[in-house]
Amino acid sequence: MSHPKLTRIAVAPSGFKESLSARAAADAIAAGVRRVVPDARVDLIPLVDGGEGTAAALAAATGGRLVALPATGPVGEPLGTHFALLGGSKDTAVVEMAAVAGLSLVPRGLRDPGATTTYGVGELIRAALGTGVRRILVGCGDSGTSDGGAGALQALGARLLDADGRELPPGGRELARLHRVDPSGLDPRLADVELLVACNPYNVLCGERGVARVFGPQKGATPAQVEELSAALENWARVLTRDLRVTGTDLHHGPGTGASGGLGAGLAALGARLLPRFDVLLDHLDLDARLARADLVLTAEGALDHQTPRGKVPAEVARRAKLYGRPVLALAGTLGEGAHDVPGVDACHGILPAPMALAEALLRASELLTDATERALRMILLGARLPAPAAAPLPAPATAHAAVSGTQRPFSVR
Amino acid sequence: MSHPKLTRIAVAPSGFKESLSARAAADAIAAGVRRVVPDARVDLIPLVDGGEGTAAALAAATGGRLVALPATGPVGEPLGTHFALLGGSKDTAVVEMAAVAGLSLVPRGLRDPGATTTYGVGELIRAALGTGVRRILVGCGDSGTSDGGAGALQALGARLLDADGRELPPGGRELARLHRVDPSGLDPRLADVELLVACNPYNVLCGERGVARVFGPQKGATPAQVEELSAALENWARVLTRDLRVTGTDLHHGPGTGASGGLGAGLAALGARLLPRFDVLLDHLDLDARLARADLVLTAEGALDHQTPRGKVPAEVARRAKLYGRPVLALAGTLGEGAHDVPGVDACHGILPAPMALAEALLRASELLTDATERALRMILLGARLPAPAAAPLPAPATAHAAVSGTQRPFSVR
Repeated sequence: MSHPKLTRIAVAPSGFKESLSARAAADAIAAGVRRVVPDARVDLIPLVDGGEGTAAALAAATGGRLVALPATGPVGEPLGTHFALLGGSKDTAVVEMAAVAGLSLVPRGLRDPGATTTYGVGELIRAALGTGVRRILVGCGDSGTSDGGAGALQALGARLLDADGRELPPGGRELARLHRVDPSGLDPRLADVELLVACNPYNVLCGERGVARVFGPQKGATPAQVEELSAALENWARVLTRDLRVTGTDLHHGPGTGASGGLGAGLAALGARLLPRFDVLLDHLDLDARLARADLVLTAEGALDHQTPRGKVPAEVARRAKLYGRPVLALAGTLGEGAHDVPGVDACHGILPAPMALAEALLRASELLTDATERALRMILLGARLPAPAAAPLPAPATAHAAVSGTQRPFSVR
Repeated sequence: MSHPKLTRIAVAPSGFKESLSARAAADAIAAGVRRVVPDARVDLIPLVDGGEGTAAALAAATGGRLVALPATGPVGEPLGTHFALLGGSKDTAVVEMAAVAGLSLVPRGLRDPGATTTYGVGELIRAALGTGVRRILVGCGDSGTSDGGAGALQALGARLLDADGRELPPGGRELARLHRVDPSGLDPRLADVELLVACNPYNVLCGERGVARVFGPQKGATPAQVEELSAALENWARVLTRDLRVTGTDLHHGPGTGASGGLGAGLAALGARLLPRFDVLLDHLDLDARLARADLVLTAEGALDHQTPRGKVPAEVARRAKLYGRPVLALAGTLGEGAHDVPGVDACHGILPAPMALAEALLRASELLTDATERALRMILLGARLPAPAAAPLPAPATAHAAVSGTQRPFSVR
């Protein structure tokens, strides 16, 4: 079975948090598509948002490679990690902060965002500097740190000093005691590269919507720790702005300064440009051209809700698909408040077939996503095949039915 | 917003067990339809299956009325109940067995299917005989009894005698001691009416798929009680066949003999015709003509699964809609094994937006059904509006995007 209006289908999902990678989600959706329109050409475009898996996905998409190396993890222990050298022009490295300072690398018992460090991110940037690339792209997302990028700056040679001129130990909490930053030891090769940070513009470092208050609790901070950390990051932005003579960027409230627990602000103080993550990341996937070629675009995320338009994958896919007039269906494990109102999404579809607990849904996500995709495609095909409006007189039924009065058929099992 | 291919939509759901009446389900679906195609003409056809609500729904649909009266309930206590006199030709009464012997009338603590009685059903039939109608339609479904209709026969004047010539007390279990049936006292007016039983053909009285084994446990029987009841009903069928000289109908295994705990068999022994419930019931709703006029048919039931094709509402609606080539979407709270394979159903859609427990889903069923209908209609419209396949060269985007290399836009919140 096939359909002339569904010959090319783009499958461009995000990963499902705690459940499916973007690749696994794309595979599950494609399996559902093939059950309904087996002859359609399915273009798999698992999407990255800067967080976990970004370096590997971009290396794969561009024909580049991963460079493995040891570095310092978020709680100070050494771990094996990697960065990417992209293919193509071969002038770009990708440092994925989650690969060395991600939340999944922080043991549950040690989840204190005032103590974890981005030191390893600085180490990865130094290693990337050593490869001679002209551009380093830092992917933010899924971070386990809230040190404002202080650790990264230390690894790159900056000295963070207290009032007695002593170097601060790791962790955002210590930044409350920061007196001055000495940049004289910073790696001189930083001047020779373009440093780009792919981040969510809605994340800012300080204030009511700052990283300490918005993300601190999910990274394991108590309310008192949140306030302490919030004040420390205020001090960090103030001292950094002064001592690194930052102009043109508001380190406290500028868009993206809060990315990855404030890593955005720290790198911006080194001259990095903070860029909307999808603008930086998705063009490596040739996304626009692939969406433009599709008859139908399927996107997906674990949850679809009022947060989705604030920089989530389905909203970005829908925005781009609409530039080319392509219809968009969004699948999700949870449809929350606002799910029906994501701009550019023509229809949304929940994947749950029956009442079940979240834990079961997470476990069965792949199978549920495949089945739900089949159902969605069948609804779309039903629409595509809608006949012209019924004309009077009524068409005769294939089997005439006796009226109830008088002439019931004797019983027979059909 | 409207759509030329969706000007008439038939909404023909079943009720959702323990949650929504068919009427409430139809209203909830219609509300979702109107959010997407507010100008469409929505034809509400809440369906009945012979069980709870059947008499009232058929009275309403035909311009008839309900007759209220007291009768004997399933555990022997008197209760207020009703039967229907249909409008139209005014020659038909509808006795809904669930209105006097339904499971919901059996207190949870008294759920012993070997003890409950259909005596009240016989009383309702007698009352209907007194109205002078020429036809009595008995609706089966949602029963709380398993007495093979023995109570109904007693209420109509038959004597059920043990080996000592003593009348049996109420309940299916007692039928193990049945020695002979004396029909001499049966109401003579029974000879003047056509007695029709609307039942599910898949229900049979005896054997491995007999009512005791299939429905006994859900009516509250223990395994030992199931076997005892099964043997009692075997005896009932044997003695009835002999003493009422039943020919042409196999009271043990004939289709529908197991309807409403064997009420089908008991009434068949009186000469009633057991008929597929939908053939008897749905023509009163002018169902076929209404489906034939629709551009799209929406049906629904609490659960859609491998049981659905065995005589459930969505399968029947789909079968009839397909006689006129109409597309059918089935909505359900639970999509079980086999939900994707119901003949005539072009697409199915689960109503759950997120992981949740059954209890919450039951409580929120109306709202969930409305939201799910909106999503389904949007998917169908997406299909109806699918553009022709994308042609090369690619259409130019409305907003040009810079490639990642070299020319990223500075950050700005869009």
